[in-house]
Amino acid sequence: MRYKLLLEYDGTPFIGWQKQTGHLSIQGVLETALKTAIRESITVWGSGRTDAGVHALGQVAHFETQQNLDTYKIFESLNALVRPYPIVIRSVEKVSENFHARFSAKKRTYVYKIQNTPFPAVGLSNLRAWWVRLPLDIKAMQQAANLLIGKHDFSTFRASECQAKSPIKTLDSCTIKKVGENVEVCVSAKSFLHHQVRNMVGALVRVGTGKWSTDDFQKAFNACDRTKGAETAPAHGLYFVNIQY
Amino acid sequence: MRYKLLLEYDGTPFIGWQKQTGHLSIQGVLETALKTAIRESITVWGSGRTDAGVHALGQVAHFETQQNLDTYKIFESLNALVRPYPIVIRSVEKVSENFHARFSAKKRTYVYKIQNTPFPAVGLSNLRAWWVRLPLDIKAMQQAANLLIGKHDFSTFRASECQAKSPIKTLDSCTIKKVGENVEVCVSAKSFLHHQVRNMVGALVRVGTGKWSTDDFQKAFNACDRTKGAETAPAHGLYFVNIQY
Repeated sequence: MRYKLLLEYDGTPFIGWQKQTGHLSIQGVLETALKTAIRESITVWGSGRTDAGVHALGQVAHFETQQNLDTYKIFESLNALVRPYPIVIRSVEKVSENFHARFSAKKRTYVYKIQNTPFPAVGLSNLRAWWVRLPLDIKAMQQAANLLIGKHDFSTFRASECQAKSPIKTLDSCTIKKVGENVEVCVSAKSFLHHQVRNMVGALVRVGTGKWSTDDFQKAFNACDRTKGAETAPAHGLYFVNIQY
Repeated sequence: MRYKLLLEYDGTPFIGWQKQTGHLSIQGVLETALKTAIRESITVWGSGRTDAGVHALGQVAHFETQQNLDTYKIFESLNALVRPYPIVIRSVEKVSENFHARFSAKKRTYVYKIQNTPFPAVGLSNLRAWWVRLPLDIKAMQQAANLLIGKHDFSTFRASECQAKSPIKTLDSCTIKKVGENVEVCVSAKSFLHHQVRNMVGALVRVGTGKWSTDDFQKAFNACDRTKGAETAPAHGLYFVNIQY
């Protein structure tokens, strides 16, 4: 029997998705809760690792057991057992044995929130958005973002520790919009390189503040060289919002 | 010289607006910061007290000093000095000596956020919304809310410790709307009784879940008796969003 979990979490207290001895991880909290709930030590597979501080509104995971579980009961008990950590199990579903949270994913969507105000993002948006003080030119950012769409070598936006075999990825979409006091960057792709979203956002913000022209952005992208890229946007602005299967 | 502050804060760690020895208050943090910033011990007057746990996006306060301050510098230094508390000074403005944060207020607006989902509000919305699990009937809630508009005796929604001279208040508006997974109750009035918004929301939720008919709501309201009212909605769903002068 295979079960699919839809998860929300505030990434702030976690070392990230993946379990690591001596650290608080989302995977670790879920596996501990599952062990109590169904008296079995089993692995919870995530659709992808999120870094320390990265949030999720729609992370997906699955686990496999011989037991035929009541999905409503497991939903209730997991939600009770993950307390006091800021994780919510939004739904539990029985899925086919072919389903794999990571390998069956067709499209992943992230939103990156930038708070673009003269005052810092330390009130209700504390650790929920990146504070960029200089006014952002959304049109210029969208123009640069358009250059990223399609199949490219994303080496400029790839973390040095990235373990992907190839730096070639296909970006389905990258849209920039103003949402209240925030500028949101929404990106979709089948998969991403390590830190790709945060590195792209760092470069887009350089364009938005006028430090880079679209041309500078294009040159950096074409260089296929991380050292030609911009700063990595902080983890706390990033939200894993959706996965399509 | 009089200065007006526009404030945002996450109410979670505070005993409330008003300073109290041995407790963390918004007023206390601001007065301490001001003392360092301008080397003067002065009172910061809020537009109204918020309870422990209540958030603000647009609280207003003022202070008075003989000093002619650079509003930009004071904005910068206050924001630096209130760290690490989740308070943001959104703006600092010089105002006339006639301005009083509390007494000049013409209209106060609060939003109450209810997360209406099968799963608890303990992920990204932890302590930012009240979790109500039973599906809410927004139409029924709006129908009941309409009964509150205008000048009435609000004793049913008045906390026993309320110090207002009269329970008669005029409610300008009360609108209920669905915002994503939340149901938001937005209320405006020149002023409110102690716990009035939270007590009205508690009663509106009874209507929304079907526990009360509009008629039950009307009867409770007409009774002018707190013991005929419903439970007080928790502080952490309440946001002080705007004050008009």
